[in-house]
Amino acid sequence: MSTETFILDCTIRDGGLVNNWDFTPEFVAEMYQALNASGVEYMEVGYKNSPKLLKAESGPWRFLNDDYLKEVIPNKGKTKLSALVDIGRVDENDILPREQSPLDLIRIACYISDVGKGIDLAQKFTDKGYETSLNIMALSHVLEKDLNDALAEINKSSIDIVYIVDSYGSIVPGNIGYLVDLFRKQLPEKKLGVHTHNNMQLALANTLEAVNNGVSFLDSSVFGMGRAAGNCHTELLVTALKNKRYEIRPILEIIEKHMVAIRENWEWGYNIPYALSGILNEHPRVAMAHRASADKDKYIEFYDKLTSPEAVIASTKG
Amino acid sequence: MSTETFILDCTIRDGGLVNNWDFTPEFVAEMYQALNASGVEYMEVGYKNSPKLLKAESGPWRFLNDDYLKEVIPNKGKTKLSALVDIGRVDENDILPREQSPLDLIRIACYISDVGKGIDLAQKFTDKGYETSLNIMALSHVLEKDLNDALAEINKSSIDIVYIVDSYGSIVPGNIGYLVDLFRKQLPEKKLGVHTHNNMQLALANTLEAVNNGVSFLDSSVFGMGRAAGNCHTELLVTALKNKRYEIRPILEIIEKHMVAIRENWEWGYNIPYALSGILNEHPRVAMAHRASADKDKYIEFYDKLTSPEAVIASTKG
Repeated sequence: MSTETFILDCTIRDGGLVNNWDFTPEFVAEMYQALNASGVEYMEVGYKNSPKLLKAESGPWRFLNDDYLKEVIPNKGKTKLSALVDIGRVDENDILPREQSPLDLIRIACYISDVGKGIDLAQKFTDKGYETSLNIMALSHVLEKDLNDALAEINKSSIDIVYIVDSYGSIVPGNIGYLVDLFRKQLPEKKLGVHTHNNMQLALANTLEAVNNGVSFLDSSVFGMGRAAGNCHTELLVTALKNKRYEIRPILEIIEKHMVAIRENWEWGYNIPYALSGILNEHPRVAMAHRASADKDKYIEFYDKLTSPEAVIASTKG
Repeated sequence: MSTETFILDCTIRDGGLVNNWDFTPEFVAEMYQALNASGVEYMEVGYKNSPKLLKAESGPWRFLNDDYLKEVIPNKGKTKLSALVDIGRVDENDILPREQSPLDLIRIACYISDVGKGIDLAQKFTDKGYETSLNIMALSHVLEKDLNDALAEINKSSIDIVYIVDSYGSIVPGNIGYLVDLFRKQLPEKKLGVHTHNNMQLALANTLEAVNNGVSFLDSSVFGMGRAAGNCHTELLVTALKNKRYEIRPILEIIEKHMVAIRENWEWGYNIPYALSGILNEHPRVAMAHRASADKDKYIEFYDKLTSPEAVIASTKG
């Protein structure tokens, strides 16, 4: 693999979708030290959405505050910090000039219909000195013509990195090359990234296949902690890339010290409802609700719900 | 995928390595019905080793008896039955002529050094009317020259199917094409199969990549139940192949009815010691012992043990 890779660990951000960002500052500080020691290039430390625009009781990693972040991670090493923002939930005035912030990269998550807004927002972040990425969610539900139009616009923008996001864990390795070609063709000047979900246990395989096709930014999370079936596991990725920069030992340490206990209290990873979401190319929210119910192991009921015409109508409404 | 595929579900056989073959006859009968209804072509119902040659207290699926098997599965459908035998542990006199047995396929597991014995044994099974396969274990520890020599002999034999076996879950999708080419070159007349383990969460991806390269016999197990990290999940494979022959629903039924409860009592699937076995290309026995100990979540201790020179000496002795 001759592609230069950048691992972006999103345990705190995507894993926060599992436990409502209930991570202690000590844990986040240790996670930073572990990722830095393991050679991971970026740590996504949460969302930088505005509590004014999104009312929710969540841990501080959902509404990042630069001063607080400096307290938690006072001594940055080589590992850069990133934050994700959602269109309509971020107040651009909350974003300090980069030299005043511990953040290096701001990633913008948006649906295809909001790509124009994403481009405008990215320009503002670029002007403030940040690296930027655009992460188009629900890619597997987007008409290719719409995607091509959007990518053509993105190519003219200030955005540095454009992500192929497998929101529903529905993409198989055999289709990664096709998607990368499609992005590459429209985005000759941009770096590409990939964000996978593990519904069909293909997150690592999809990530490696993306690398083989020249994708350089690779999202992962420690012990796979991320929404629903979770993400590509950082501990697997650092070894599978066979790059001398990466060390697995610091990642094993944080898994042993913290992740096993967190996993006992919070559920993520492979199970049948999440597998079915991936297979059926559906948002995992119905499966997550099913897993949170008393019927969590009633798979046939869930399968029938997901495959009956009525359920399809309900889910597209939601 | 234009390759004609044959799924061989080995839940009872490989899963038996997890629970010492503690499956009730009712469960095995239901598993057969489920696999038959789902369109799975083969069910491996256990080992046909001899209790005279291998002293062990195990469920009946380790020492298959044809009469007992006929009682458990009195009405066979389309799904064929297979059994695995180990060189040195099978008494060829236990193998009835095929027309007197419910078994259709006998698979021979052997190390590279025993391939000659495997070929002789296969000839006897062929003469009795069975389909046969040879499964060379620990492939990732075999010198390519030795493998080529062995495959050249196998090509002249009566064996129908030759398996690429990833015993240690250490093979990555990027190397599957290379291995298939190597087998194909020496075995132009044989069908090829693949048996994967999920240590690095690559079992499905490796299986799909094998199919893309023309491999037709695909091992899997329901809910992934198999030794250590387990196998390619049957419920994922039947959908990922996108073949109209296969149905996921009967597999979901048996998972809901039985596998969740079995999983509560017995451990298999992804965890850090099994991941490290795969990453380091080691037999999982050390990891399995670690998981059975009080120190099961001490990953650093395990990692250091596996990577220290002393541990390597101990493990090659074992």
